[in-house]
Amino acid sequence: MKTQVAIIGGGPSGLLLSQLLSTVGIDSVVLERKTKDYVLGRIRAGVLEQGLVGMLEEAGCADRLHAEGHVHDGALLSYGDETFRVDFKGLVDASVVVYGQTEVTRDLYDARERAGGEIVFEVENVQIHGADEDAPFVTYDKDGEAHRIDCDFIAGCDGFHGVSRQAIPLSVRREYEKIYPFGWLGVLSETPPVHDELIYANSERGFALCSMRNDHLSRYYIQCSLSETPADWTDAAFWEELKRRIPTDMAAKLVTGPSIEKSIAPLRSLVTEPMRWGRLFLCGDAAHIVPPTGAKGLNTAASDVHYLFQGLKSYYRDKDPAGIDGYSANALRRVWKVERFSWWFSSLLHRYPDQSPFDLKMQIAELDFLRSNEAAQLAMAQNYVGLPY
Amino acid sequence: MKTQVAIIGGGPSGLLLSQLLSTVGIDSVVLERKTKDYVLGRIRAGVLEQGLVGMLEEAGCADRLHAEGHVHDGALLSYGDETFRVDFKGLVDASVVVYGQTEVTRDLYDARERAGGEIVFEVENVQIHGADEDAPFVTYDKDGEAHRIDCDFIAGCDGFHGVSRQAIPLSVRREYEKIYPFGWLGVLSETPPVHDELIYANSERGFALCSMRNDHLSRYYIQCSLSETPADWTDAAFWEELKRRIPTDMAAKLVTGPSIEKSIAPLRSLVTEPMRWGRLFLCGDAAHIVPPTGAKGLNTAASDVHYLFQGLKSYYRDKDPAGIDGYSANALRRVWKVERFSWWFSSLLHRYPDQSPFDLKMQIAELDFLRSNEAAQLAMAQNYVGLPY
Repeated sequence: MKTQVAIIGGGPSGLLLSQLLSTVGIDSVVLERKTKDYVLGRIRAGVLEQGLVGMLEEAGCADRLHAEGHVHDGALLSYGDETFRVDFKGLVDASVVVYGQTEVTRDLYDARERAGGEIVFEVENVQIHGADEDAPFVTYDKDGEAHRIDCDFIAGCDGFHGVSRQAIPLSVRREYEKIYPFGWLGVLSETPPVHDELIYANSERGFALCSMRNDHLSRYYIQCSLSETPADWTDAAFWEELKRRIPTDMAAKLVTGPSIEKSIAPLRSLVTEPMRWGRLFLCGDAAHIVPPTGAKGLNTAASDVHYLFQGLKSYYRDKDPAGIDGYSANALRRVWKVERFSWWFSSLLHRYPDQSPFDLKMQIAELDFLRSNEAAQLAMAQNYVGLPY
Repeated sequence: MKTQVAIIGGGPSGLLLSQLLSTVGIDSVVLERKTKDYVLGRIRAGVLEQGLVGMLEEAGCADRLHAEGHVHDGALLSYGDETFRVDFKGLVDASVVVYGQTEVTRDLYDARERAGGEIVFEVENVQIHGADEDAPFVTYDKDGEAHRIDCDFIAGCDGFHGVSRQAIPLSVRREYEKIYPFGWLGVLSETPPVHDELIYANSERGFALCSMRNDHLSRYYIQCSLSETPADWTDAAFWEELKRRIPTDMAAKLVTGPSIEKSIAPLRSLVTEPMRWGRLFLCGDAAHIVPPTGAKGLNTAASDVHYLFQGLKSYYRDKDPAGIDGYSANALRRVWKVERFSWWFSSLLHRYPDQSPFDLKMQIAELDFLRSNEAAQLAMAQNYVGLPY
């Protein structure tokens, strides 16, 4: 098989790239290890920056998002007895859209299928060849048979555990990592959300987040120890703990119900440099991970896709290689900014096991400053709604 | 002896309080352990916020400050190959004044002497009595004789090592502290400053600061290990190291000369709560310490004096105790904000021995963000020129 861009990974970033490329007549093939149903079963946050919304519009996949997504013009932060709202709309005249990542992925699959895009599911033993030479190709097995795709470029959209990152030799690859000393216990429940905007809570019992997928599906998180397992938490224990961490008025009106999903996720910051090696380009989780505080994972994958799409478009349309040559530097410049925000927002809201009384006072002072200082809120809002590409 | 306010400590905060009280007819006595020459021999930073300048004007001690002080409308920050200026004047329409703390102290002594204010030098064995009762008094020895001052209130302006803080029982006193894992090696030299504004440098070899007292007297600092002593550093070694840490163009025009003072200071953050115990009020270093980055020590002592002066004025003039009753809460509210800024600014600029490659990337990302984001610069400038009282 032959294509222009071989895309490894059929999650949202690989699909978005494939769909955008098709709008300008660039041919691609998407390889996915799992089934479509498996991919659509992954539950992820869904707070979309304007940049991502714009790209979904450009890709022709934004109709349902606009019909069903919820525009959020602000978010609540609480700590101690204080609750305050950061008014994104008022501060930076922009908003975010709450729309599940699963739904984004579904819309992208629908679009690729409508366009007759090639997606190969259940591929095994994917290998990247000659990425640092002029004629790269990807091999894989499918139903016991070996396959080969010759291509001009390879987009590695296969996440943290994928083969793409590891195809870059360690002699040129450097990774920067921080492991946070806690996790998030998340519960999905078919209950109305406690509030129409997100609530980020720094309580003396640890962080909590009240989020949602839609009007009938709530997503709540509480900071937990990494030694705990979901089985350690009954639904009743989860709801009780959540109520203790969020503002009293919110706890009073919280509607609880059976959990339909319960899991613990670790928090990690990670960046791989470079994001390009020859004709291989890393996108999204394949190159970087952010802790979920502030929901930047999908959005940052989308900004990578933006830079790569623009680079490939210029390359094919204008024979201008500047965009693909500059891909790693341009993508990383924004990635580090987002890593900074996600690290800062995580540091602001969680309780740390080794936090001294002075450290805790600094955290509260930072929250006081954010609550009372418009410039601090402005900087936060600019990051939250999404830095420009 | 009898007075209304017994002030322990003849440094700038005690003198400023005494002078301000005299302008509204409130009587005070200042007790100082050392001689006047000793106090005036202490070398301290001198970057004055507008709030302190205003208080010195109110105290009638600002003529020489206005004649000889240098107004700074901005400051330079450098890291890697980047140098940028934060334009305080443009951002917040305010400036700071560079004028040595020694000069402030000298002006305050002159004013107290002109006004016939009582300052007792070389007192020993100062003790605070009955601060939690209605008739407090202070005892001390002078020239081998025991003395007693009966008073309404006691202002503890005697610094970190003074008796005032320790007069508050441990059962009600709480201290929050952070020790930084490095010090500042400072050199004073009779050379023209390398630049007309301050330069804060984060270099891979550690922090450096180019500051000054006046046009002919420069003050430079470099981050050093706490295990080093000034004797480990010849003048030549200091200048060579400084040049390696500051922007190349500044290093090229740095004028060096013999050091006339060379010392190492540790960096510490510390806050004592409460700042009031009965009729005893702590001011300045007696209650809190900031690392010197951003030069908030004297300015924060001045904000304490502001709250205490306003409280005492209302008490004596209007019989309104609200100001003195609220002193600790009001002063601490601002103290914690300043502690946050000094901690943040120190964290931004120093290299830490335990800093991981990811931590270092976050520091650089924070500097990138400050360099490129106006809201971040605005928040920084508001803090640098001085938060409102």
